[in-house]
Amino acid sequence: MLTAKPVAIVFDTFGTVVDWRRSLIADLTAYGAKRGITGDWVGLVDAWRAAYRPSMDRVRHGELPWTKLDDLHRMSLDHLVVQLGFQGLTADDLVHINLGWHRLKPWPDAIPGLTRLKSRFIIGPLSNGNVSLLLNMAKAACIPWDMIFGSDLFFHFKPDPETYLGVARMLDLSPSQVMLAAAHNDDLAAARACGLMTAFFPRPSEYGPLQARDYVAEMPWDYVAKDIEDLATQLGV
Amino acid sequence: MLTAKPVAIVFDTFGTVVDWRRSLIADLTAYGAKRGITGDWVGLVDAWRAAYRPSMDRVRHGELPWTKLDDLHRMSLDHLVVQLGFQGLTADDLVHINLGWHRLKPWPDAIPGLTRLKSRFIIGPLSNGNVSLLLNMAKAACIPWDMIFGSDLFFHFKPDPETYLGVARMLDLSPSQVMLAAAHNDDLAAARACGLMTAFFPRPSEYGPLQARDYVAEMPWDYVAKDIEDLATQLGV
Repeated sequence: MLTAKPVAIVFDTFGTVVDWRRSLIADLTAYGAKRGITGDWVGLVDAWRAAYRPSMDRVRHGELPWTKLDDLHRMSLDHLVVQLGFQGLTADDLVHINLGWHRLKPWPDAIPGLTRLKSRFIIGPLSNGNVSLLLNMAKAACIPWDMIFGSDLFFHFKPDPETYLGVARMLDLSPSQVMLAAAHNDDLAAARACGLMTAFFPRPSEYGPLQARDYVAEMPWDYVAKDIEDLATQLGV
Repeated sequence: MLTAKPVAIVFDTFGTVVDWRRSLIADLTAYGAKRGITGDWVGLVDAWRAAYRPSMDRVRHGELPWTKLDDLHRMSLDHLVVQLGFQGLTADDLVHINLGWHRLKPWPDAIPGLTRLKSRFIIGPLSNGNVSLLLNMAKAACIPWDMIFGSDLFFHFKPDPETYLGVARMLDLSPSQVMLAAAHNDDLAAARACGLMTAFFPRPSEYGPLQARDYVAEMPWDYVAKDIEDLATQLGV
């Protein structure tokens, strides 16, 4: 029996579409060299990402009012540069470093795969990033989204159901007509609990030496692919 | 002195980007012929559009709670098909006719002009249409938007300031870095009152024989062009 096809496919973005770790390390290391700022850039990137989910949980659990991801990133960054002993960072440096998340680069299969999928499906990011972050990233990297579902459209972060269901509502689709594609099993589980279709492909080097999970599909997701190009092939485009 | 350039350009859509009147008349006349439904389709289209602003004003003035444009269109349609004596319309017919607004066709200069502008500026619709309407229209007509600013992102219709200012907020730009492009002087006046830049080009056949205004720029807008291609030329792309 053939698996049904969705009308719209929304993509988790950090890790799934863009290689945040390698992008940020390269970007910040080059910036540090240009500015003459020495420091543990790799350690900063890993610690910054480790602070990502706890910072969103402060919003999700009501400890902070709605705060967009750029601002959570900045709060974490301000703390980490002190903790890691970075010296000589100006206010402009901190703004530039924080906007590093707007400059992330796609995995090699992402643009060709998304371009193929766009010919038949509505495609967009469904990310905890804010619209400006995702839009600046898309403009810089030529990611051909139809619509950008930033978390600031919903005033909720994933895995809150308001995000997955918000996409369906905004597109006038039933949840079962929308598919989440992600390299993270927990994101897919939350989407499936809301009635969305699901597609998994692994990004085994996302966290570099710190990768500890998401090497394989942990549930029978609707589609399991090698990458976005393979997903396009499985979906017949 | 050269006029400053914006970072993002948002476009009024009905009339400015798409030729709603000619599109709807052609679409509904063909549908009526196929379905064997006779009636005054031209009269329906003109009366439907005449009901547009009053229907939104009911929301803007608090007489109705937030109601997306598709639903306002449907309320007006249900009333008008009775008033104009259409016979034999099924529930499916009414759904199809109402979605005619999702199938509008761009003016000839729109796609080439927007494609040129997209190379340098963030572009999107800023319309009273809902996201699904604008997205379905863009997919069908290959309109290359970067982001879709439907009124359902803001729960407000233009000319409420929440729409113009909402775009700037969502893009992390100041209002003066955003430009509204429109074929309607009143829309531009509301955008300017919020601090946006403004661009006008006329669509003198938008309302067909009922056109009564907007033949020329009534204020010294930042840019006055012949059409979207000419605007691209003036902006150097």
